[in-house]
Amino acid sequence: MLAEIITIGDELLIGQVIDTNSAFIGKELNKIGVAVYQITSVQDNKQQILSALNDASKRVDIVLITGGLGPTKDDITKHTLCEFFNDTLVQNNKVLAHVEELFKKFSDKPILDVNRQQAKVLSKATVLHNIKGTAPGMWIKNKDTVFVSMPGVPFEMRYLITEEVIPRIIKEFKRPHIIHKTFITYGVGESALAAQISDWEDNLPKFIKLAYLPSLGSVRLRLSGTSLNKSSLEKSIEEESLKLKSLIGDIIYGDEGEDELEVVVAKLFTEKRKTLATAESFTGGKIAEIITSMPGASAYFKGSVVSYATEVKTTVLGVPEDLIKTYSVVSEQVAVAMAKNVQKMLKTDFAIATTGNAGPTKGDSNAEVGTVYIGIATPTKTFAVHQQLGGQRERVVNKAINKALELLYKEILGC
Amino acid sequence: MLAEIITIGDELLIGQVIDTNSAFIGKELNKIGVAVYQITSVQDNKQQILSALNDASKRVDIVLITGGLGPTKDDITKHTLCEFFNDTLVQNNKVLAHVEELFKKFSDKPILDVNRQQAKVLSKATVLHNIKGTAPGMWIKNKDTVFVSMPGVPFEMRYLITEEVIPRIIKEFKRPHIIHKTFITYGVGESALAAQISDWEDNLPKFIKLAYLPSLGSVRLRLSGTSLNKSSLEKSIEEESLKLKSLIGDIIYGDEGEDELEVVVAKLFTEKRKTLATAESFTGGKIAEIITSMPGASAYFKGSVVSYATEVKTTVLGVPEDLIKTYSVVSEQVAVAMAKNVQKMLKTDFAIATTGNAGPTKGDSNAEVGTVYIGIATPTKTFAVHQQLGGQRERVVNKAINKALELLYKEILGC
Repeated sequence: MLAEIITIGDELLIGQVIDTNSAFIGKELNKIGVAVYQITSVQDNKQQILSALNDASKRVDIVLITGGLGPTKDDITKHTLCEFFNDTLVQNNKVLAHVEELFKKFSDKPILDVNRQQAKVLSKATVLHNIKGTAPGMWIKNKDTVFVSMPGVPFEMRYLITEEVIPRIIKEFKRPHIIHKTFITYGVGESALAAQISDWEDNLPKFIKLAYLPSLGSVRLRLSGTSLNKSSLEKSIEEESLKLKSLIGDIIYGDEGEDELEVVVAKLFTEKRKTLATAESFTGGKIAEIITSMPGASAYFKGSVVSYATEVKTTVLGVPEDLIKTYSVVSEQVAVAMAKNVQKMLKTDFAIATTGNAGPTKGDSNAEVGTVYIGIATPTKTFAVHQQLGGQRERVVNKAINKALELLYKEILGC
Repeated sequence: MLAEIITIGDELLIGQVIDTNSAFIGKELNKIGVAVYQITSVQDNKQQILSALNDASKRVDIVLITGGLGPTKDDITKHTLCEFFNDTLVQNNKVLAHVEELFKKFSDKPILDVNRQQAKVLSKATVLHNIKGTAPGMWIKNKDTVFVSMPGVPFEMRYLITEEVIPRIIKEFKRPHIIHKTFITYGVGESALAAQISDWEDNLPKFIKLAYLPSLGSVRLRLSGTSLNKSSLEKSIEEESLKLKSLIGDIIYGDEGEDELEVVVAKLFTEKRKTLATAESFTGGKIAEIITSMPGASAYFKGSVVSYATEVKTTVLGVPEDLIKTYSVVSEQVAVAMAKNVQKMLKTDFAIATTGNAGPTKGDSNAEVGTVYIGIATPTKTFAVHQQLGGQRERVVNKAINKALELLYKEILGC
């Protein structure tokens, strides 16, 4: 079973907004064995939308459309769908009541005619009720293809996909089974990794594909298997996973292949009932932000001292001025002191500290751009690791965070 | 002049990676008056790539392709381009020398045959030298269309676009002028805004388009004008901007329409030589992260105390336990105390504090999910604002951050 995604909006084409909807939809569809054949982004332009709908309808079983359902004049998706299906708009009273209720509850402004228009839907459509906003989703079957129209606002779209669209696809379509298994590897580059597993890769069964997804300091290997027979597929994926692990098991992190390193770390901290703090300089609070963006972080994360200015390292974190003078603010000694002191200050079992120069210019220290030290404090020891991470600010920060999480992972795992 | 973007990679279709390349390319093209007609993402599959290339070549003048140039077996873009253009791969010695140099410099592993293959390029292509990585860009003119192939690794692609592709487009293509002007508005919803400016919008000249881009707590209004006559276009955009400002000037932020609020705030702090700290609870360090992700933040940002756990608010930030007991940890009083104390502790002119419940469950306080207090300390006063921000964790955090920056903006502006 094949799907296509069409995202509509001028803002996508001029790059003002990054299309995150497609990735979300792709992920959810893949979980239930629906492969996404193509993603197309087009402008708020009738001819372009019509042409994208027409092309997609020839290729796939279901077309998922987001965007262009707002109340303003540049939102033309609904009228364009009418033309495409030769249909008309009719008022849906349930949607109207919902729109009126939302206005009563959340707005101190009177409801306008343009808002009431949100309750108009295609006469042929099954309405997908959008409790998160005023624009309803629509499920339209036309010949052999299903079209689903959803608002482009990410959290409304996500609600509709999860609560309305996926359950309906499961009910109405026969699908093959798709299993993905991802392994996160650290410390070996993409091509060296490819050389190491080349023979195994060449002998993979045809219904299993391998992809390399390199990111900062790590390569994710993704096995994707497709079959109508679920149990034999599971068996094959399991067998190939074991073979892969026997080849490169020493550089694979975590058991749950799908998870990012921070998720693996979070699980371990929660399970082991340990606590964590961070003392961040050039990472500017991003480690704390990544950790607290996961629900449940309050079970193990106590907080952070972001000591961006050097003086904050001494006045708040209590790093001795002498230490900074002797070794410079970007040094192993300062990273160790920061980790130790934040661990003590926030009374945690573990701590991460970062000090370095992410660029673009040299800061308070004379360290080359890309020089970083990562300090780790555990219940039994404190140490720091030096890394030289290139010259691009964002990459220096992200690579350092990955390295910090990797170091922390190793420590909490053995604890 | 029209362009299309084709991004290649299974990881995009299954949603494992969000396509950020297209937005970057779209933005850069628009700056020089090239409109993006469509963005298409396809799998690492020969037939699909061929079909996408063929479709795009019929519609536009230039096709920008990213992805599938890595050294591993799933990277098939180069061979597919050969088939599409009926061309062969030839070794480029300059690229080979560069690949070998990169390996000598950054890798402790021997160079492999698959890495040397990176130096093979289409015989008809002009090579775009990629100093950031091993896969070169290629510029291929075929009949009336130019095709540009680039690696999918974002920082390599960005380098090639900025340093090679854009200058070459400027040299080789005639383009109309495009001017975008964006106004960030706060506090009025999309449809109420549309009603307020409806007459003006209806009377816009045909070559100027208006788009509404609602995000958390704000709506960006974007005027886009296209014309061959640059000076008359500038004049029209200027006139329409003035008309718009006369209608809704009171809710427009900043002078530089293109900038995010945090950029406007950063400029003001730098200009006025004032300093800033944050004390963050449920925002978990994200305000600090947003501020420090902009180069030059060290001129005004000193640091943050992320007091995620309640005890850190008392032990590190010095918020009196009595205050928390009396008013609860999610309260105006605690937000004010956090802002005051972090301002004093880090010796800054201004401070932001956040305390609230972002969900999904109630935390240390009994406050409803979505209840937040934002504290602001200035050189002359401290205050806190209450907000009720719905039930979705990520949105609660992001809305609160926008509100905090808005409050800070108003204070620093008048300072």
